[in-house]
Amino acid sequence: MESAGSNSSQVIRCSIQDNQLVINWRDGTQSRYHALWLRDNAPDARDTRNGQRLLESIDIPANIQAASAKLTDDGQIEIGWAEAHEHSRFSPEWLRAHAYSNHQQAEANCWRVLWDGTLYSLPRAHFSEIAQGGAALRDWLDTVQTYGFALLHGVPTESQALLKVVDLFGYVRETNYGRYFDVKSVVNPNNLAYTGLALSPHTDNPYREPVPTLQLLHCLAAVDNGGHSTVVDGFYVAETLRKQAPEQFALLATLPVQFHFQDQTTDLLAEAPLIRLDARGSLAAIRYNNRSIAPFNFAPEQMDAYYAAYLAFGRLINDPANQIAFKLAPGDLFMVDNERVLHGRTGFSSSGNRHLQGCYADRDGLSSTLRVLRRES
Amino acid sequence: MESAGSNSSQVIRCSIQDNQLVINWRDGTQSRYHALWLRDNAPDARDTRNGQRLLESIDIPANIQAASAKLTDDGQIEIGWAEAHEHSRFSPEWLRAHAYSNHQQAEANCWRVLWDGTLYSLPRAHFSEIAQGGAALRDWLDTVQTYGFALLHGVPTESQALLKVVDLFGYVRETNYGRYFDVKSVVNPNNLAYTGLALSPHTDNPYREPVPTLQLLHCLAAVDNGGHSTVVDGFYVAETLRKQAPEQFALLATLPVQFHFQDQTTDLLAEAPLIRLDARGSLAAIRYNNRSIAPFNFAPEQMDAYYAAYLAFGRLINDPANQIAFKLAPGDLFMVDNERVLHGRTGFSSSGNRHLQGCYADRDGLSSTLRVLRRES
Repeated sequence: MESAGSNSSQVIRCSIQDNQLVINWRDGTQSRYHALWLRDNAPDARDTRNGQRLLESIDIPANIQAASAKLTDDGQIEIGWAEAHEHSRFSPEWLRAHAYSNHQQAEANCWRVLWDGTLYSLPRAHFSEIAQGGAALRDWLDTVQTYGFALLHGVPTESQALLKVVDLFGYVRETNYGRYFDVKSVVNPNNLAYTGLALSPHTDNPYREPVPTLQLLHCLAAVDNGGHSTVVDGFYVAETLRKQAPEQFALLATLPVQFHFQDQTTDLLAEAPLIRLDARGSLAAIRYNNRSIAPFNFAPEQMDAYYAAYLAFGRLINDPANQIAFKLAPGDLFMVDNERVLHGRTGFSSSGNRHLQGCYADRDGLSSTLRVLRRES
Repeated sequence: MESAGSNSSQVIRCSIQDNQLVINWRDGTQSRYHALWLRDNAPDARDTRNGQRLLESIDIPANIQAASAKLTDDGQIEIGWAEAHEHSRFSPEWLRAHAYSNHQQAEANCWRVLWDGTLYSLPRAHFSEIAQGGAALRDWLDTVQTYGFALLHGVPTESQALLKVVDLFGYVRETNYGRYFDVKSVVNPNNLAYTGLALSPHTDNPYREPVPTLQLLHCLAAVDNGGHSTVVDGFYVAETLRKQAPEQFALLATLPVQFHFQDQTTDLLAEAPLIRLDARGSLAAIRYNNRSIAPFNFAPEQMDAYYAAYLAFGRLINDPANQIAFKLAPGDLFMVDNERVLHGRTGFSSSGNRHLQGCYADRDGLSSTLRVLRRES
């Protein structure tokens, strides 16, 4: 049997054993593929234009038998089926890339860098650079994905300029606050954001489901005293709690709490644990907002333990050692992953004319744009 | 001590025991409130304009002591604090409504009605009625929340008319497909939706995170043969699987799978279990799309068991006994909860001019509008 493909995807031998395709690669490793998996993923059952699967998986006979495997003259691996369907062809490169028997489950979020207040240099870029697209945009978006936030300088100090930043990678998530909203001190605010009060670090809109996964804040006017922005890596803080007090971490990841926001025309309510884990137990989302969290509604015997966990988490979040503070100048903007990085501000005189504009967007557009930009590099 | 309040919130006696407020109500029940919970939720620590909490919970002394409780002349319950802060006043009605010691954890989703193909009458309304707002809109939105889908008749057969339906309750979720998209047969489709092929029941955009939680499809032109719409209650089907094969249900709720969509300008990838449970083990979301699911990447020893579970779930979804089929006429629209109800269609001639417009929106706007409309009734 001849070898085919290049580098690691060169096939030395292929055969059927126990109704599995067994491939020995030139680098000495071996991969195994179940017959049902092969039939389900056969290229001849996919639309050639868009790659979507044309067959219904449930229509494959559950006991489908792979009868033979051979390397064709043009270097493909051809599986002969015992069933009516004659054969399917796979490229060695594709099989190597999807060799589930060889690798650990992908560590999904290995690109994340967790940080505390010692992060020495704030991730930042300039609007005029990223507006060109290409590597500059790619690197800035990568920063947001890696650190959960990034700064941008030189955004035009015009109303709605932050929407141009969103246009570079995705789509605005419109809400009852509009496509964008003005953050400044007003009379009769329906939200404490619209006062000069300090805001401790929080995630936005925890009373919404789904929560907006990205938030942008753009400075149009600053004040001399106060109004500094703060950010905290909620994942770093949660991992700290997981180490320090695993039982408290588990409570926050398990017991749902409610968040509530009401005004004349709006009544938003969501219920979720403060910490959401994915199916592998990795951090998926932080939801924390001491202003809009509803009175706890646990069984009485859980109340003391939950409060202890909640306050331990809150102390970590409010610990200056875990925070980065910076002052936005007009034209500066920062973007946070709103399910990971908490943001806040120090107080300022409510007579000052500090003026930010904010908007929401979602991570799916960002990560799609990032993947497309990486194709080009 | 005199009684105050009305009906169930009439207080017979209040006292402090074990650092908890103990209230005996006129109806014979008793409620208990931890001192820390009371201080954390004291009305005097909330903004009078918007109800948001002004104090930082972490600033409350962890050992805060409630020294006294009394009923005031104006019928409030006044807690005297041993700390510097003198006292806090609560209304009996509010305390009764938040009496966490008395009730079971709220059954969050008790308003859901699960259904199979025998649902005898399709939930439906007329656009001209719900466009007036009020009870008609409330009832239609309630139907979507209860059943996970609803039909609407009489939507103007004009492009973008479906956006007017979204305007009645929420906000469009814009994606790479635009604010809305046309579903008709085209040359060189980037998606099988844009062919005349049958589409088995699926949720839309499983390769996106967050998934759009609502989808609307509006018929502008129908064909004589085929092109029927189908819907399946994914929660009913998942509960069926949970009963029939709990270990298969558990696999689908635990092992993450990937969904992928790529074209020239887009590269969307998300990873999640097909079934998402909330912290209480209730169904939170279904994500199922046999066309865009990526090759499974489990450890080899999990592959057979996962395929058995995946195909069992797929057979239930594709079982006509679990499906409702209906044919949209021009002017008809249906909306689904895209994390619960799967939708599909039967095939039609790709030379026919069947034309739907679709768009996405989110549940938060819907449930907020519903709560506000219920205030008025």
